[in-house]
Amino acid sequence: MHASPSFASVSTPAILLDEQRLRANCARMAERAAAAGVRLRPHMKTAKSARVAALATAGQFGGITVSTVAELEYFFAAGFADLTYAVGIVPARLPAIEALAMRGARIQVIADSVAAVQGIAGHDAGRGGRLRVLIEIDSGGHRAGVAPDAAALLDIARAIDAAPALQLEGVLTHAGHSYHAQGDAARREIALQERDCALLAAARLRQAGFDVPVVSIGSTPTALTDIPLDGITEIRPGVYMFFDLSQARLGVCSPEDIAVSVLATVIGHQPGHLLIDAGALALSKDISANEYDAGIGYGLVCDEQGRPIDGLYVADVHQEHGFVKASRGSPPFDSLPIGARVRILPNHACMTVAPYRQYLVPRDGGIDSWDKTGGW
Amino acid sequence: MHASPSFASVSTPAILLDEQRLRANCARMAERAAAAGVRLRPHMKTAKSARVAALATAGQFGGITVSTVAELEYFFAAGFADLTYAVGIVPARLPAIEALAMRGARIQVIADSVAAVQGIAGHDAGRGGRLRVLIEIDSGGHRAGVAPDAAALLDIARAIDAAPALQLEGVLTHAGHSYHAQGDAARREIALQERDCALLAAARLRQAGFDVPVVSIGSTPTALTDIPLDGITEIRPGVYMFFDLSQARLGVCSPEDIAVSVLATVIGHQPGHLLIDAGALALSKDISANEYDAGIGYGLVCDEQGRPIDGLYVADVHQEHGFVKASRGSPPFDSLPIGARVRILPNHACMTVAPYRQYLVPRDGGIDSWDKTGGW
Repeated sequence: MHASPSFASVSTPAILLDEQRLRANCARMAERAAAAGVRLRPHMKTAKSARVAALATAGQFGGITVSTVAELEYFFAAGFADLTYAVGIVPARLPAIEALAMRGARIQVIADSVAAVQGIAGHDAGRGGRLRVLIEIDSGGHRAGVAPDAAALLDIARAIDAAPALQLEGVLTHAGHSYHAQGDAARREIALQERDCALLAAARLRQAGFDVPVVSIGSTPTALTDIPLDGITEIRPGVYMFFDLSQARLGVCSPEDIAVSVLATVIGHQPGHLLIDAGALALSKDISANEYDAGIGYGLVCDEQGRPIDGLYVADVHQEHGFVKASRGSPPFDSLPIGARVRILPNHACMTVAPYRQYLVPRDGGIDSWDKTGGW
Repeated sequence: MHASPSFASVSTPAILLDEQRLRANCARMAERAAAAGVRLRPHMKTAKSARVAALATAGQFGGITVSTVAELEYFFAAGFADLTYAVGIVPARLPAIEALAMRGARIQVIADSVAAVQGIAGHDAGRGGRLRVLIEIDSGGHRAGVAPDAAALLDIARAIDAAPALQLEGVLTHAGHSYHAQGDAARREIALQERDCALLAAARLRQAGFDVPVVSIGSTPTALTDIPLDGITEIRPGVYMFFDLSQARLGVCSPEDIAVSVLATVIGHQPGHLLIDAGALALSKDISANEYDAGIGYGLVCDEQGRPIDGLYVADVHQEHGFVKASRGSPPFDSLPIGARVRILPNHACMTVAPYRQYLVPRDGGIDSWDKTGGW
């Protein structure tokens, strides 16, 4: 972290991070976890930043979730030693995981088939100890995981049990389909489904004689319902730290909660559009919020201070160019001359922040820089 | 560049670069430029790599095109001193540009309005000398640029001429709409339009008494036609070095010319799909080739050696997960077990390669690593 002289000197495009909103979002999830009596293991695949992880884990037990080896290594180096790698494990990941375990990391991996377990059965359980494995459950998202009522669930547990270098840690699921819920009632239904699938899988494993210390669920839309979570031990939401237009349109937050925006500069005036220097790489090509509101395009446009400009949105993107249009009439050419700056609220924060090397955090009249990781 | 022990040890996802195809693609564009009698100033926004730039400029005059300040600084440090920054100039870019000019860089910038020129009129013309400005012309893409027949064209030239620190270098256009041409005849029409708009603008400026040493056009689809380019001085294509599925479906190359692919690992088997560890960040959410062929999704799947597997494509992506489906029947679960590797041909190489920190180049039984830049 180092202070930059002024907001005016920031080179665009850049990601601005509002620390006050970030802290409020983290506090909201911490309160939900406390009220539900579960541990919070925040997913750091969105923010990829140790400074953000410090706020997200404040007052918690300290464990986090990650989705790349780069994140495992970055967060371990930053002092986060309890790490769940929540992407299906393959043998090629073992050398990196073993190296971290030898240095003291407590790493959980996930598997959803006997074949996947057999692939890691030869794990080197040396000084790092046995590798903890969570069985991934499909709670309706149909991306990955074994069905909670499938015979294969017990086969997977037996395969883990049979491997001297592995240890069954519990079950894990992610209701990714909650990102497409139509209304609060539908989202609540998905949350119940996510919870109940995890509980069913855990009950079946226990009935078969296995210890199941961890029952882990997680997605921001399902975590932020008020359903009881008895029997669940931890939640793993991620995007709530920043929120975005998809979450706002889903009803999980308000646009005023969104903590990240892309600072961009107006580089041209054309009939019908303003051209800005934030395009497909700076904003991403994710247009997920348009599932709920067709007028969002590649993001909503705010003024330099972050106040939304009614009806102004990014209608199209090329690699380094964004086309800003007004949903009615012409864009405000007079108030946004060439060289003026705007902020863009993202559709999907996970996608938008990924390519940036740092967050710029306005503070005390200057700008702090918070490092982050990226890539794989 | 350093050698890695083996192809088998490569961590996925990764970008593989086929040097033989890259060289052939570079040779093809060099031949086109030579046959047309124009200079080739390759656009390095796609590859962002000095090693690739060395191949693309081999036998040429050495100038390149870039689209970010990060690229200006990276390529200048790598020995490329003649740089066109082909995104509309704003005052905030001047400090970085002036710093490079003081160290010997010859930088051209572009502007398409009197307001943009006035914004940089206060350029510090110290030891770096006057800043060369190309007037950006709209040749039908309607992204940026002044119409070649507009009165404003001469106003912009006069504004440049009136600024002691600026120097009119010529005109520049980019027919971005060529990426959406329907058929070879339509693409040729766009190529003619791009050329003729540039020539008209140059002629009007010369008639008004201005020197116009540079008449620059460029896009891969328009460059790779056989139209005569008399009067044009340079072309600035970029994606041709790598090509991609969009260019293949447009008819500009064949799939066998595509020089980059994403190496990914199968991490799960599900009813109806293979799960791979290359998702929205590793492939990008660009689905542009589907404009021509709806069966491409987020990319076509090849085996580990790069041989296409008929009918296999990436049907959906989450942040770090790709869903591989077969256009008919089930994916080949038996031949692609968990842990197997595949290669994905990208829709749009510029988007897909951007987040990677390096290219992995198979060579002599091992893998070379070629560095690249990224970000802004």
